[in-house]
Amino acid sequence: MTSRRDFSRASLAALGAAALGSWRPLPAPFADARVNGARLNAHLKELSKFGANPQGGVSRTAYSEFDKQGREYVTGLLRAAKLEVRVDTAGNIFGRRAGSNPALKPIWFGSHIDSVPEGGNYDGTVGSLSSIEVAQSLAEQNITTKHPFEVVIFQNEEGGTVGSRALLGEVKPSDLALVARSGKTIGDGIAFIGGTVARLAESRRAKGDIAAYIELHIEQGGTLEKEKKNIGVVEGIVGIGWWDVTIEGFSNHAGTTAMNERRDSMLAFARFADMVNRVVTSEPGRQVGTVGRVQAFPGAPNVIPGRVLCSLELRDLDNAKIARLYDRVRAEAAKIGQATGTTFSYKSTHASASALTDPRLQKVIEAKAKEMGLSTRYLPSGAGHDAQHMAMLCPSAMIFVPSAKGISHAPTEYSSPEDIVNGANVLMQTVLTIDATM
Amino acid sequence: MTSRRDFSRASLAALGAAALGSWRPLPAPFADARVNGARLNAHLKELSKFGANPQGGVSRTAYSEFDKQGREYVTGLLRAAKLEVRVDTAGNIFGRRAGSNPALKPIWFGSHIDSVPEGGNYDGTVGSLSSIEVAQSLAEQNITTKHPFEVVIFQNEEGGTVGSRALLGEVKPSDLALVARSGKTIGDGIAFIGGTVARLAESRRAKGDIAAYIELHIEQGGTLEKEKKNIGVVEGIVGIGWWDVTIEGFSNHAGTTAMNERRDSMLAFARFADMVNRVVTSEPGRQVGTVGRVQAFPGAPNVIPGRVLCSLELRDLDNAKIARLYDRVRAEAAKIGQATGTTFSYKSTHASASALTDPRLQKVIEAKAKEMGLSTRYLPSGAGHDAQHMAMLCPSAMIFVPSAKGISHAPTEYSSPEDIVNGANVLMQTVLTIDATM
Repeated sequence: MTSRRDFSRASLAALGAAALGSWRPLPAPFADARVNGARLNAHLKELSKFGANPQGGVSRTAYSEFDKQGREYVTGLLRAAKLEVRVDTAGNIFGRRAGSNPALKPIWFGSHIDSVPEGGNYDGTVGSLSSIEVAQSLAEQNITTKHPFEVVIFQNEEGGTVGSRALLGEVKPSDLALVARSGKTIGDGIAFIGGTVARLAESRRAKGDIAAYIELHIEQGGTLEKEKKNIGVVEGIVGIGWWDVTIEGFSNHAGTTAMNERRDSMLAFARFADMVNRVVTSEPGRQVGTVGRVQAFPGAPNVIPGRVLCSLELRDLDNAKIARLYDRVRAEAAKIGQATGTTFSYKSTHASASALTDPRLQKVIEAKAKEMGLSTRYLPSGAGHDAQHMAMLCPSAMIFVPSAKGISHAPTEYSSPEDIVNGANVLMQTVLTIDATM
Repeated sequence: MTSRRDFSRASLAALGAAALGSWRPLPAPFADARVNGARLNAHLKELSKFGANPQGGVSRTAYSEFDKQGREYVTGLLRAAKLEVRVDTAGNIFGRRAGSNPALKPIWFGSHIDSVPEGGNYDGTVGSLSSIEVAQSLAEQNITTKHPFEVVIFQNEEGGTVGSRALLGEVKPSDLALVARSGKTIGDGIAFIGGTVARLAESRRAKGDIAAYIELHIEQGGTLEKEKKNIGVVEGIVGIGWWDVTIEGFSNHAGTTAMNERRDSMLAFARFADMVNRVVTSEPGRQVGTVGRVQAFPGAPNVIPGRVLCSLELRDLDNAKIARLYDRVRAEAAKIGQATGTTFSYKSTHASASALTDPRLQKVIEAKAKEMGLSTRYLPSGAGHDAQHMAMLCPSAMIFVPSAKGISHAPTEYSSPEDIVNGANVLMQTVLTIDATM
């Protein structure tokens, strides 16, 4: 998780083993059950009003007034779906319905409704409202599951998956003091939305507490749309490594220092950023590498920069590949340093190991989509999700629906009503199949 | 000058023609006259106390209290050298001594005493105090020149050669409103040091008013030291072009956007900065090209930058070469844009044409240095100087002395006492030769 800094193959294997359960998918009853798609899309439209921006999209950052209003709206929908609502001490909202077999652990499904500043109307909300719609449709269609189930609306996903990390006991006092985008500290924010910071530990869950977790989400990338696939079966959430890179050269007068006498850290940076792209794209796979931030010092047009700071991010589903790419980047950067008279140093600022989804849940999602005549594609999630933390607690899986042009975290984020309904129906059938077969 | 934006060969030729005079160097009387080197270096040490930093070097920015104190100290030295002191309406200090032929125009020599923040003790002060030392030595040795001469201490060289630009009428009302490094506006600063902003136009000089201008200065580069030369004969002050470059790509999620779907403006910037270096170093000559400033937006480790702003600076003694290099950079950048799905746009933010020094004055300097047994090297000045504006008014030249390790604008700036005395003696003999032969 966010505290993991181990990209070794051993830790990857351990993770894979943890995700294995003891049941097999079987045909489920109620195979014809479907959600009310029109109602689902109407609810999405209603929710988009809380924090709507004049130029489109939404700013419903966690712990803001709009976040609170959105949570109240969602709570009303949970109640209308005949769910028993509670807020845990971390501020996550749960809507529970009892199952017919009291001995079984609950099946969870859900997502989040908070947004980034100037975000879109689909990230998180599609999964959240589809989960509520599944619950309401089950109630209306008088379908009683064996397992209890809980629709979960995680708090503050965009500001660091705070709600789901609290379930793992990973939200520390130092995290509570951090200022969120709303301007409140996370601690104050949790209190603002009805949590109880002093009893945060009570939100913690143990392995075995939950039967399974399913999250429907928009892809946020362009693969499904480009390949004209209806449903993405998520293989896992990629591991992420962040480093701060410092390049030290020698600052000097740009007019009086000949080209061959320079130790130009900007030139070294330029070759570094180009090289990162080359290294990352030099082998097959879906790994990505990004240099998103740069600062040059002193930063004047007429001074050769003596120091450049930049970020390096690497992501892949295979933690070992992240480690291997990082090693290659460092080796290549050392050569750039030699050629330019500069030195490179690195500081790890964040590392989260990849979280694999449960292979058998993947197959349930694939089978259910195909039964409905929908095309599927296996793919990793390049973005982080609450599901990556849930995967530490129970067999977990994610269903993706297409994102127009792959745009996310922007007002132009869009998924079509048809794609959303497809996703909700696959979610419903997946939940029913898990319920029937595990 | 700073307002010129024309790097054509025609303007260069016109400049060269303007610098030609109507006299020839001849052997001068008083060929054995020398300055008092020990006194000169003692004065340099005294002046370095005004604005001295605890960690070494000096912060004597124009219009600061330390600048004022330094000017008072220098004024005392001018008076001690039997010069008639006045401050023009722009705040430049002049110390004048009459010549034996009232029909002749004055010979000027001098430099500046203001510094950059956390600057060194040699930039400007070496030329200023050497000029005063030349005047004092002439007085002590009872040498009367035919021409009147004036030692000039230009104000605010480091903040945009304000004092010498005023002589050309180039300091505009909008310049007066700019805030200098001292925190005062240039207008308030001029008043603070004894100028009169309302009568600024009176400081203006016309072509023909001055017989010649000579400026002694530290090289601020590493060429003389590296080649073990005592004296640099400056061929001219390089032209400078500055551009703001904007690279537009498309900002997107670094986790979910595959490498081949990106329009990464940081990658385009990286290739741009590397290419600028390659283009500038691809032909012989002393041209320099620098990318000193960069900003990436939004500037987060996990977001592909959609926009990058950076600076581009090109310098050379040949304005046509600057224009040619700029054209090549733009052509290469267009290819980078095509390959990365980005676009480049350019805005000229500053352009000063190169200012050539007078070829016959160059030869006087070279001859006088050699007569003293000093080695010489012709070289351009990569930095701007007041002399570049003086070259618009009269035949002008510069004498360089070595800078240790080429370091300038830093506390570690250093020129040896011997090199400084060599420079002052060449200045003295150059002034005497001009006086005798023109």
